[in-house]
Amino acid sequence: MNVTIWNEYRHEKESEIVAKIYPNGIHETIATFLEEEGFNIQTATLDEAEHGLTDEVLANTDVLIWWGHRAHCEVEDSIVEKVKQRVLDGMGLLLLHSAHFSKLFKQLMGTSCDLKWRENGERELLWVVDPSHPITEGIPEYIELEQEEMYGEHFDIPTPDEIIFISSFAGGEVFRSGVTFKRGKGKIFYFRPGHETYPTYYHKDIQKVIRNGVKWAKADNTPEITYGNYYR
Amino acid sequence: MNVTIWNEYRHEKESEIVAKIYPNGIHETIATFLEEEGFNIQTATLDEAEHGLTDEVLANTDVLIWWGHRAHCEVEDSIVEKVKQRVLDGMGLLLLHSAHFSKLFKQLMGTSCDLKWRENGERELLWVVDPSHPITEGIPEYIELEQEEMYGEHFDIPTPDEIIFISSFAGGEVFRSGVTFKRGKGKIFYFRPGHETYPTYYHKDIQKVIRNGVKWAKADNTPEITYGNYYR
Amino acid sequence: MNVTIWNEYRHEKESEIVAKIYPNGIHETIATFLEEEGFNIQTATLDEAEHGLTDEVLANTDVLIWWGHRAHCEVEDSIVEKVKQRVLDGMGLLLLHSAHFSKLFKQLMGTSCDLKWRENGERELLWVVDPSHPITEGIPEYIELEQEEMYGEHFDIPTPDEIIFISSFAGGEVFRSGVTFKRGKGKIFYFRPGHETYPTYYHKDIQKVIRNGVKWAKADNTPEITYGNYYR
Amino acid sequence: MNVTIWNEYRHEKESEIVAKIYPNGIHETIATFLEEEGFNIQTATLDEAEHGLTDEVLANTDVLIWWGHRAHCEVEDSIVEKVKQRVLDGMGLLLLHSAHFSKLFKQLMGTSCDLKWRENGERELLWVVDPSHPITEGIPEYIELEQEEMYGEHFDIPTPDEIIFISSFAGGEVFRSGVTFKRGKGKIFYFRPGHETYPTYYHKDIQKVIRNGVKWAKADNTPEITYGNYYR
Repeated sequence: MNVTIWNEYRHEKESEIVAKIYPNGIHETIATFLEEEGFNIQTATLDEAEHGLTDEVLANTDVLIWWGHRAHCEVEDSIVEKVKQRVLDGMGLLLLHSAHFSKLFKQLMGTSCDLKWRENGERELLWVVDPSHPITEGIPEYIELEQEEMYGEHFDIPTPDEIIFISSFAGGEVFRSGVTFKRGKGKIFYFRPGHETYPTYYHKDIQKVIRNGVKWAKADNTPEITYGNYYR
Repeated sequence: MNVTIWNEYRHEKESEIVAKIYPNGIHETIATFLEEEGFNIQTATLDEAEHGLTDEVLANTDVLIWWGHRAHCEVEDSIVEKVKQRVLDGMGLLLLHSAHFSKLFKQLMGTSCDLKWRENGERELLWVVDPSHPITEGIPEYIELEQEEMYGEHFDIPTPDEIIFISSFAGGEVFRSGVTFKRGKGKIFYFRPGHETYPTYYHKDIQKVIRNGVKWAKADNTPEITYGNYYR
Repeated sequence: MNVTIWNEYRHEKESEIVAKIYPNGIHETIATFLEEEGFNIQTATLDEAEHGLTDEVLANTDVLIWWGHRAHCEVEDSIVEKVKQRVLDGMGLLLLHSAHFSKLFKQLMGTSCDLKWRENGERELLWVVDPSHPITEGIPEYIELEQEEMYGEHFDIPTPDEIIFISSFAGGEVFRSGVTFKRGKGKIFYFRPGHETYPTYYHKDIQKVIRNGVKWAKADNTPEITYGNYYR
Repeated sequence: MNVTIWNEYRHEKESEIVAKIYPNGIHETIATFLEEEGFNIQTATLDEAEHGLTDEVLANTDVLIWWGHRAHCEVEDSIVEKVKQRVLDGMGLLLLHSAHFSKLFKQLMGTSCDLKWRENGERELLWVVDPSHPITEGIPEYIELEQEEMYGEHFDIPTPDEIIFISSFAGGEVFRSGVTFKRGKGKIFYFRPGHETYPTYYHKDIQKVIRNGVKWAKADNTPEITYGNYYR
């Protein structure tokens, strides 16, 4: 299992608050708990050449994890296009938190992917609504995060193939926080939590969900499809 | 449009609190705001012969509304079977609040239809998550109910065809509060609100959702299907 | 109901075979049977200024019908973007036949939208698999087309919200021929039949499906959604 | 992985044609190719006490396979109820061919589960329409069966959670031949092929699909859910 973790990696370098929580970047924190699972981990960040996503890196990636926020517009269109094609060809994709507004997610969804938000450090409860889904393996019936950014409905995405988690926030909003989509031969999991100013990725159940998501998103050896002019 | 409103009609006769809110029964309150829409309304209740659901009544019903709670087990199996067949043959069905645990709903769903609940008079917010659905016509992006019974996930139903509303409760729980299912040629809408001790069915937006639901559930003149041994 | 019919309108001008079937263009044939329904019809074609899709035309369109084939790449990106935004804002969209490969459909879907095809004039049967859907109103349980182009699975689209028709072809292929999607506040119906060298749009049941599709796709007065930084 | 194969086991004892193809019963043929996978196999048949489905057998079953046809009505209601509860509690379930009309499937679905059929020994092609699904691992883009019973739409089931295969038959009918459903914590896979008078279960790709289906249907260690009166 080859996992590549892509991180914008700007907040951690520019904000003391964020740097205290994720001193080596969000990607390294995620790498640490995925390595425990025995996965082969690479990382890639925005400011590297080709954003760290060379053809070779992508060719050797079974599942890509994406965290981005304030610099979505700095991601090169050509790289977005290349990553999107790899997803359609079968690379798994996990999008975390503000990656909902990445070029990559918006192009795969075809919608605005907009939502409500509020930075108010309020309690989030993530409730399991699909308790037979492999992504819920080993977790309790809800996950409590003491402080998170609020994301609220309406979340402007296509009807998900599966809804696994629905969140409530202390302010009363709700959100489809764990949703899956199939696009081409690629499996996509969007998972809401992980604002940079809270230690969300140190939470054991959040880590478990991400580990489960990576395993779920990896492609099987499914049929080669022929397209175009066709005679059996 | 012929609408039949079925009500268990026990709480209103046995509890002063409920009788004050719905002096003529929940069915009559619902009848009043549906008549404004120009629908032809009949009512039927548990303690009538055949629970008021004779073959003639059912044959003249385009959409059936169902409210039941503590006497689900008193509904005759033969009546449940008859109503279920009418739904499969194309009669629309709206199930309100505790009708989630009716024999009728459980047999149409095939699951336990169980959930969490708490009678604590707490605030419910119903958020629209499908803002292109005809059932949301004319309502705001969320409906606020000051006091309601809490229903919480996991709600043990099959994956709905559509999720229109998701609720949050003051205590932090969430619930898929407006969900649709197609079964046979029948269209089914489950809508959560309406505990008997709160004046929920006087709320203008709740009334609007129920009116919209009735219109949505009515069958069109869709194809006659042939089953069995077949040669074109 | 304001309906705009967009047609590439090239085959009809360049091929005698096509011109014989659709002497005034496919759009005029479709316009004729939609006018019988009392809809207000406009048409627009590729070679007009802005492809006939000015801001004013789009603002006055409830439902847009799209037929394109060999000149998908000549449709300006800026027009595609404008039409896509109108769909997300609530304009209904019907895509016919080879419109599966239009820029518009591909950007709304986020996938390749590829498929198998064969021009062999073979029999197509379109079977209703959702006999409670309003788009099937007034049609039989299958529609037979004596001669059509074959389209075969795998059709590389996201999981549709609804599958209404599945086709078989004389050669043995199958295809999800009538599928719906919600994107933003827009309702989308893709309907497979209509190769330019066959008189498909004169078939009474095909016309009925398109009329039903237009009615289904028109937006209701559904909730205004607020996005962005939010405090209730 | 503990797999129990339930077979009606009547045709094989009463028909010479069937006995020639499956001399030890369909269940033994299925057992043979599942044992190659390293699964622990038990079998159970209608004419055994409790139809071979004692509490102990069910408690030790991760995935149950069901083949029945002409004696659906002889299956005891109490056994059906017990098996249904085990599915809702997380036991995987594969239903093969005419098991679409078993009491078990009908009660889990809530619909008639009716369809068109024709015993005419005609060619079936099963096309993959979900090429990212683990059940399609290792198979080609379509499976050809030289002779099978025809099953045709409309298949009166709830909207499946996933459609994996769609069949065409030589006569022109289509069928959703591989469909999945989640019910409670149980995962259900209905797979169409396998009429008793054809050697379908000796086909390598059919065997592969059933093996994949068993692996997919096995429950993970997903959350324990609490239902009823609830205070966090």
